[in-house]
Amino acid sequence: MRDPVGSEIQRVIQLLARVPGLGPRSARRAALHLVKKREQLLEPLAAALQVVYERITTCTTCGNIDVTDPCCICLDPSRSPHILVVVQDVSDLWALERAAILKAPYHVLGGVLSAVDGVHPEHLNIPSLLQRLENSSITEVVLALNATVDGQTTAHYLASLLPPQLKITRLAHGVPVGGELDYLDEGTLTAAMQQRSLL
Amino acid sequence: MRDPVGSEIQRVIQLLARVPGLGPRSARRAALHLVKKREQLLEPLAAALQVVYERITTCTTCGNIDVTDPCCICLDPSRSPHILVVVQDVSDLWALERAAILKAPYHVLGGVLSAVDGVHPEHLNIPSLLQRLENSSITEVVLALNATVDGQTTAHYLASLLPPQLKITRLAHGVPVGGELDYLDEGTLTAAMQQRSLL
Repeated sequence: MRDPVGSEIQRVIQLLARVPGLGPRSARRAALHLVKKREQLLEPLAAALQVVYERITTCTTCGNIDVTDPCCICLDPSRSPHILVVVQDVSDLWALERAAILKAPYHVLGGVLSAVDGVHPEHLNIPSLLQRLENSSITEVVLALNATVDGQTTAHYLASLLPPQLKITRLAHGVPVGGELDYLDEGTLTAAMQQRSLL
Repeated sequence: MRDPVGSEIQRVIQLLARVPGLGPRSARRAALHLVKKREQLLEPLAAALQVVYERITTCTTCGNIDVTDPCCICLDPSRSPHILVVVQDVSDLWALERAAILKAPYHVLGGVLSAVDGVHPEHLNIPSLLQRLENSSITEVVLALNATVDGQTTAHYLASLLPPQLKITRLAHGVPVGGELDYLDEGTLTAAMQQRSLL
């Protein structure tokens, strides 16, 4: 006899279980919810995934994902031609875009150096970064990498490679907005105190 | 200018955020993962969802979901014609099938009575249940409903409606297998003690 759950739904469950944030149990719940919301959710999601599958591509200039190459950020003439923001991943690019603080183009490394995970310089988009900086109008490179050991190691490695005439900056350390001192680690508190500013 | 995240991915993120188990933040992570696993995950998931959307239907006999109507459980000749298991939802049917303890057909109520949520008898698949029991060979109805107030209210309500010659049973209460007494509520412990059996 066939599996009572049905091989078609079983397949959706198996695939959903591989989506980060969902496990086998929540994938079953998600699949059932999708089937119940056939017209409002299942059909639009299937169609939207198909569109993304067919059209999405990686920008050969910056490493962002978009339906065009170069991506819409690289094509945006309103962004500063003098600053380049280096990020680890597309998710970091999205986070900075949500904050909408600096109108500048990006360069997505595609990871950070990690001896544990076996990520070496040749695995990152470093050659394309160096190429972009050659004969360009860029004067400042913001290394907007995570404040982790791997992120900071990568920042120092990159700083040693970049042309010396460039201004190389990193994000400030300090108390997160809305953060309570009681819950912060000593490294953050030390940085926040050392870089204290006039009120 | 266009949204830098891209309206196509934005749409996938919005739809994924409506899947139970995923929120706005994890939907972004999931969408990014899908784009990175284009061939291994994104394409198969889009295709599998499309197949389910096109082919899945609700069994008019029992309320299960399947690609055939009657569903494969209703069509299965190896299941007992004398027992019917009443469940709240398709997910409960799947759970009992995973345990594979009783080879019997099911009846999915599609919910339980709830004054708070405004679920009344007319919202549940009760008429089709009564119709199924008429002139049938069914002698026992197992009310496999959740051990919640709403589940048990529904069980008592159903028991009052069902033909009196039927044997009506419910799932046993007791200590879950692997459960520690220390963490169990008093209701469960009382039930487990009252229904204790010889070792």
